[in-house]
Amino acid sequence: MDLDRRKVFAYIDQHIPEHTSKLQELVRQPSISPENKGVRECAGLLLRYYKELGCVSSLVETSGNPVVFGKYDAGADRTIVVYLMYDTMPVDEPGWTVDPLAGSIREMAPFGRCLVARGAYNTKGELRAFLNACESIRATGQELPVNLLLVAEGEEELGSRHLPEFFAKKQKDLAEADAVFFPFCGQDRNGKVLLFLGVKGIVFFELELDGASWGRGPREFGVHGSNKAWVDSPAWRMVQALATMTSPDGNRVLVKDFYKNAKVPTDEDRELLQRLEKTFDESPQKTEMRVDRFIGDAKGIDAFKKYLFDPTLNIDGLWSGYTGPETKTLLPHKMTVKMDVRLVPNMTTAEIIPMVRRHLDEHGFKEVKVNLLEAGYSWARTSYKEPAVKAVVKSYTEMGKEPEIWPTLAGSAPFTMFSQEPLKLPVIPGGLGHGALPHSPNEYIVLDEGGPTAGLATMEKSYVAILDNFGKMRP
Amino acid sequence: MDLDRRKVFAYIDQHIPEHTSKLQELVRQPSISPENKGVRECAGLLLRYYKELGCVSSLVETSGNPVVFGKYDAGADRTIVVYLMYDTMPVDEPGWTVDPLAGSIREMAPFGRCLVARGAYNTKGELRAFLNACESIRATGQELPVNLLLVAEGEEELGSRHLPEFFAKKQKDLAEADAVFFPFCGQDRNGKVLLFLGVKGIVFFELELDGASWGRGPREFGVHGSNKAWVDSPAWRMVQALATMTSPDGNRVLVKDFYKNAKVPTDEDRELLQRLEKTFDESPQKTEMRVDRFIGDAKGIDAFKKYLFDPTLNIDGLWSGYTGPETKTLLPHKMTVKMDVRLVPNMTTAEIIPMVRRHLDEHGFKEVKVNLLEAGYSWARTSYKEPAVKAVVKSYTEMGKEPEIWPTLAGSAPFTMFSQEPLKLPVIPGGLGHGALPHSPNEYIVLDEGGPTAGLATMEKSYVAILDNFGKMRP
Repeated sequence: MDLDRRKVFAYIDQHIPEHTSKLQELVRQPSISPENKGVRECAGLLLRYYKELGCVSSLVETSGNPVVFGKYDAGADRTIVVYLMYDTMPVDEPGWTVDPLAGSIREMAPFGRCLVARGAYNTKGELRAFLNACESIRATGQELPVNLLLVAEGEEELGSRHLPEFFAKKQKDLAEADAVFFPFCGQDRNGKVLLFLGVKGIVFFELELDGASWGRGPREFGVHGSNKAWVDSPAWRMVQALATMTSPDGNRVLVKDFYKNAKVPTDEDRELLQRLEKTFDESPQKTEMRVDRFIGDAKGIDAFKKYLFDPTLNIDGLWSGYTGPETKTLLPHKMTVKMDVRLVPNMTTAEIIPMVRRHLDEHGFKEVKVNLLEAGYSWARTSYKEPAVKAVVKSYTEMGKEPEIWPTLAGSAPFTMFSQEPLKLPVIPGGLGHGALPHSPNEYIVLDEGGPTAGLATMEKSYVAILDNFGKMRP
Repeated sequence: MDLDRRKVFAYIDQHIPEHTSKLQELVRQPSISPENKGVRECAGLLLRYYKELGCVSSLVETSGNPVVFGKYDAGADRTIVVYLMYDTMPVDEPGWTVDPLAGSIREMAPFGRCLVARGAYNTKGELRAFLNACESIRATGQELPVNLLLVAEGEEELGSRHLPEFFAKKQKDLAEADAVFFPFCGQDRNGKVLLFLGVKGIVFFELELDGASWGRGPREFGVHGSNKAWVDSPAWRMVQALATMTSPDGNRVLVKDFYKNAKVPTDEDRELLQRLEKTFDESPQKTEMRVDRFIGDAKGIDAFKKYLFDPTLNIDGLWSGYTGPETKTLLPHKMTVKMDVRLVPNMTTAEIIPMVRRHLDEHGFKEVKVNLLEAGYSWARTSYKEPAVKAVVKSYTEMGKEPEIWPTLAGSAPFTMFSQEPLKLPVIPGGLGHGALPHSPNEYIVLDEGGPTAGLATMEKSYVAILDNFGKMRP
């Protein structure tokens, strides 16, 4: 029996206040995986959500945070893995104008009311909105149009380090799936719908130099700064090592072979680029990030090609010595640099650390330690020809939206674990609505309709439409 | 009437437990000037101390922390300025094994019992020990052998920024003085007595780059790290700017003209060096700092010449972006570097900032801001031929110690304000005893006698002898 979407949409429209409260409840439960704060409590909350929906649910333990796994058997032909993440970044950034864990709702021009909170957009907002959508179908006395395998991981922000353990345990269940869906809100601030067919890979590591490993400088603690006259400075030395890794503008990576395996754009990328040249507009991204000019003053499709295809060596953070107010004369014994590399096809995660190690050695910096923080995962791509992609595009069209199809996000998600052998599943993020500022202060997701973007109601309706079209997929 | 030192020494020996408690009381009163923590309360404590000694005392207000000024009129021929500092560094360093503000006493091989606390050595320990010495003279019914002008500043660790205001207010009083004495404990960990005839100058500044000042990169906050593909990184750019400032080992400063005005060693330095070649031993300093090798593997007098005569460009601390646990992919919008320059004769404080600015400009880093943190002060030297120096040396000789005379400390203190026009006073730090680890965790001062160094009793006795010999100085 066909899903009566109108009934569901009406139900959603009538229940937006309750649905909003559920988003607030979820962002108020901290689940900051880098600081191990509230993560397990949040997993418990999800378990309750799954049960309320009618799933057979369990916490699948790993060596780290559990995966909250739920099976919803709708007796349907098609089965979709719904990839979710329930962890978030810390809230350490200066610049928050609300308590990042309070679930604050604020009027934000030009969008109307928004939920401003850590995780609002990345990605507790979408997670809960998706569950709201599923519950709304059930609340109208209808059955879900597809079977669901809900996979919510608690370590996405830690590079999904233990997710392979989950795959090993649940491979048989996952093998039943036809596709993987990542509930997202894909509209930019002007309302244009973006559809991402891939992600970049990622590896996290740390460069570290201290007097003990160097055999020079203070071994154990910082000493009075006047001693710089006769004592080597690990901080200066690390700065020199770092500086060898990029061009003077910090943009061209000088680590040997860094770009060697980057084989982009692919043939499909080229096809998509032809269409993108006509529609791509970088201004919403600039506005969102408060960036005036892109690298090399690139504009339009040229800037976008960098976004899509450039692998990156990024400084996430660095520190040494005294970082407090006023002055303290100190010769620090140690400097640390947190870095990440983003991988594009056909780079491999395994090549990164040896490449960095070799670079430092060849430049005479054998004493700089390269500490792997997260082995990470590879890039992933899904063909735009996949039925699951067509199902999402169709849903947008039905709702009066024409998506702009991007070959990839510059960001990363562990889609490769689904798309590689043995599962080889297409992975597709989708959904209307708008949010922004992941990992930044004042992260938000739009709640109100009537602005340039969809609000929560339309976001939930888009999930309903997508599920419906997934149910009708023919391979 | 001559001072009967034996009476005073006996009194000191009998009152070491009470004297120790007074050191503990002073280090337990926080006075962390960079964080403005407890400073004024500590000034109040000193005012009480001065009054207990019998001084005419006052807080001399400045635009910053007050100078605690005390006049002790002994009716003597000679008048000595006693330069003191009552502020300390923060206690942010990792590695403290005691509460740095608790006034803990710990057994520390090979010294015996030590006071382990922030300020124990730098320099609340000596300050209070000096007052103990003065009180002990009075407690034996004797008069101090010199008149004292006690000048305790609360901003030494902020580069003595407002001390000139004090000089302007009290110039007439200070003009009566014959010399300036800085109570110190000058023994190294082996017990050798060191006598410092000078200090280096210092200037503090900050290099800062953010997207707003650059016109590139995120203007207001860090953005998701994946954007490195098309957004410039202020952190990478700052690393590149910094790296232009030194040789690859971080030791040779490449800022143009940095060494131009450094005219060292002076003639007197050369005379002192001849003696030092026979006695100087760097091993106590290496042990104290946990340093295995000095710059360029220099040893003995060669290492020492660097210590004495090299001006330095030091990284006190630096930071950018995410500095928390685990990983966070972030493109930071800002990087900050706290630096200090140490000046040797005949460098001037005024030349430093323009020199750094010019360097950055000439290397294409006009966007890097140079923020003056502390205009600082110049180097200072006192001739070993000064009567005040001879008085201190004589005191050591009388106590069975032969000092090793160093032309200068590598560290800085605002001695130039006394030694320059109009006062032109000789400035001499002195005192037996041992402490170490200023600005480092587990800073300490030795209390017990019987180890390789003097303890608190001998330290106080040395101050008594020095005051006595100051009283007998003939110009």
